[in-house]
Amino acid sequence: MRAGIITIGTELLLGDILNTNQKFLSSLLTSLGIEVYRHISVGDYEKPMKEAIKKCMDDCDIILLSGGLGPTEDDCTKEYLSEVIQRPLEKNEDEYKKMVELFQRKNYTLTKNNLKQIYTIKDSVILHNEWGTAPGEYVKYKNVHIFIFPGPPTELEPMAKKYLPSLIFDKTEIYEKSIQIMGLGESAVETRLRTLDLPKSLEINTFAHFGSVEIKIIGKSSSTNQVNIDVQRSIEIIKEEFASSIYSLEGNMMEEEIIKRCMEKNLKIAFAESVTGGLLVKRITSYPNASNILHASVVTYSNQSKEEILKVPRKDLETYGAVSEKVAMEMARGLYELGYCDIAISTTGEAGPIPSEKPIGTVYIGFYNGKKYRTKKLHLNGSRREIQKRIATVIFTELLKVELGGNNGN
Amino acid sequence: MRAGIITIGTELLLGDILNTNQKFLSSLLTSLGIEVYRHISVGDYEKPMKEAIKKCMDDCDIILLSGGLGPTEDDCTKEYLSEVIQRPLEKNEDEYKKMVELFQRKNYTLTKNNLKQIYTIKDSVILHNEWGTAPGEYVKYKNVHIFIFPGPPTELEPMAKKYLPSLIFDKTEIYEKSIQIMGLGESAVETRLRTLDLPKSLEINTFAHFGSVEIKIIGKSSSTNQVNIDVQRSIEIIKEEFASSIYSLEGNMMEEEIIKRCMEKNLKIAFAESVTGGLLVKRITSYPNASNILHASVVTYSNQSKEEILKVPRKDLETYGAVSEKVAMEMARGLYELGYCDIAISTTGEAGPIPSEKPIGTVYIGFYNGKKYRTKKLHLNGSRREIQKRIATVIFTELLKVELGGNNGN
Repeated sequence: MRAGIITIGTELLLGDILNTNQKFLSSLLTSLGIEVYRHISVGDYEKPMKEAIKKCMDDCDIILLSGGLGPTEDDCTKEYLSEVIQRPLEKNEDEYKKMVELFQRKNYTLTKNNLKQIYTIKDSVILHNEWGTAPGEYVKYKNVHIFIFPGPPTELEPMAKKYLPSLIFDKTEIYEKSIQIMGLGESAVETRLRTLDLPKSLEINTFAHFGSVEIKIIGKSSSTNQVNIDVQRSIEIIKEEFASSIYSLEGNMMEEEIIKRCMEKNLKIAFAESVTGGLLVKRITSYPNASNILHASVVTYSNQSKEEILKVPRKDLETYGAVSEKVAMEMARGLYELGYCDIAISTTGEAGPIPSEKPIGTVYIGFYNGKKYRTKKLHLNGSRREIQKRIATVIFTELLKVELGGNNGN
Repeated sequence: MRAGIITIGTELLLGDILNTNQKFLSSLLTSLGIEVYRHISVGDYEKPMKEAIKKCMDDCDIILLSGGLGPTEDDCTKEYLSEVIQRPLEKNEDEYKKMVELFQRKNYTLTKNNLKQIYTIKDSVILHNEWGTAPGEYVKYKNVHIFIFPGPPTELEPMAKKYLPSLIFDKTEIYEKSIQIMGLGESAVETRLRTLDLPKSLEINTFAHFGSVEIKIIGKSSSTNQVNIDVQRSIEIIKEEFASSIYSLEGNMMEEEIIKRCMEKNLKIAFAESVTGGLLVKRITSYPNASNILHASVVTYSNQSKEEILKVPRKDLETYGAVSEKVAMEMARGLYELGYCDIAISTTGEAGPIPSEKPIGTVYIGFYNGKKYRTKKLHLNGSRREIQKRIATVIFTELLKVELGGNNGN
């Protein structure tokens, strides 16, 4: 089944607000196995709104309209829909009674504009709005399911969750599974996915996150068993293809997976950051439970702070320069010896925009676990921020592959 | 002039991400005095994409397309547009050379898919993408201005800002001036703007950034003089109204203004972060010249690290708890005494999701300049990340108002 979502409101077209209703409804429909085919947003004007409704009538099985149900004269969603599907608006006595009671209780004056809200489309199902005043409506017209929801997300979201599935369905169920890939770009993942012999019954798509790629498998069916078997089979095939590039089968971001594995292995990490300037520690601490695996971290931008806080020998700074393999190693060692971590990770490099001792994009990273040093030299392109982000991606990937490896869901 | 915005991408229709491009482009067009008439989002499919382009050709003067410029087979925005407007795609030798060089430098293999990106529409203007690989394009077809931008917001936003105004408004010149406001929300700024007697000839709009609000003044005209006078007059009126809430007349983000003022005053700052976990130092170091004003910074998540690195007395941690005014003060003092800064800033608090000693949202921040302590208690709402970001906003605002105050462009 295919759906079109039509959101109505001048504030959307002015760019004043993000269209969260579009995202919410899309995500809800997707989770129900319904393909969202088109989003349209228009103002409260007759021509574009009627055209949008007609267009979606042509090629969708479900149309969701949101907004334009308010009491002002601009709000004409019901009116225009009623004209397109040629079903008149009628005064709804139940809604009228409710409104009169509400206004009496609140001691408000009922105006002509308020009364607009109690006219509903002939033969529609009224979707009661427990979260606001304007009711929603459901109409089935020429086999198309049409829903009208109020615009405020605090009303639309609970109403859509409550009424959509039961009015559209029958019994089809949805199976979703995510596989997270590191160290490969989205197009590489997609190219390799295409070569695999995966069950045709499933929707399999890729999504790029920062530093990782998600493969999402979606199966829909009324026969539970076959979908389950297909999803399981595709996971096995994908696991075989991507092997150690898979780091999570639970939908975790890289940071979450690092926190999870450190907690399982009872390990603490810490960062001694120069070129990344706090990005690594910030990325980890923006996830819950970070305090279980990270007790302290330092940003040592200047040579003096590298020397004093991390005990990097002055002669190394002088001989090799701050951006060098030796200094990355010494930074990791010095951090480890502060005693806050089991795995110390260091970064030093040039992120630009003005190069100093080494060319922009030259980066050294160091790992030290009290026994073994490991360093890596990187040559990165991009803006200052891109370089910093790419270093974070490399470090999180390395950590998950090596120091925290062997637990990638395989 | 009327515009239609067409955003392309399956992730939008699946409801995986909010359509920030739609909002950004709408807001940009509105600020240029262009009416946004319709938003459409579709997947990378021929039928709905071509229909969307044709629909907007019918009733818009400007069409903005974003997304679908990537290297995968799904990405067909240029191809479909080229068919609708019947102008062939041609190999662009300049873009080809650039790509070959880039891939050689990175030691990547150039695939057939990558080469898709170097085909451009005949007679189009290439919009160079300094922020990523896929160039944008501008075509004028039957008096309709058509723009294609890449989907990633980090590429689309600077490109749209750079190319849209000059290509749409041929000879008319654009005068732009930004006034940055701190410590006030967007709707408060807008409400106060509305009460002012500002020249009618200008477009004056507000834009919310994280932690600050930008008032953008745009004048369009072929007669330079009057516009200049009007823009100057409106700046004076706005300066009088917002006084000390204004922190920059040069379009600086708060971080950039902090770096600029610290450099002017020859001051260094440093952070001792607990609840913000590195966010403050990361925000500063993601801007150029950060190394001139920040030499070192620490994240002290555990009590032990607060005690050892920052010399916070154990009895204070025991008596008042880590989340306390006393500990915030001691953290700032201890950081200052490490000798890397003139202004030491500390944070301690509960960001959740699981409360421990104090309720979630309880935060203390401390400032110490070697002479005077200053602390502030905050009660914040929101998710873990929202709380962290709000703390950053408060700290940057405080810094600009107090420690680095008296230089707000007035």
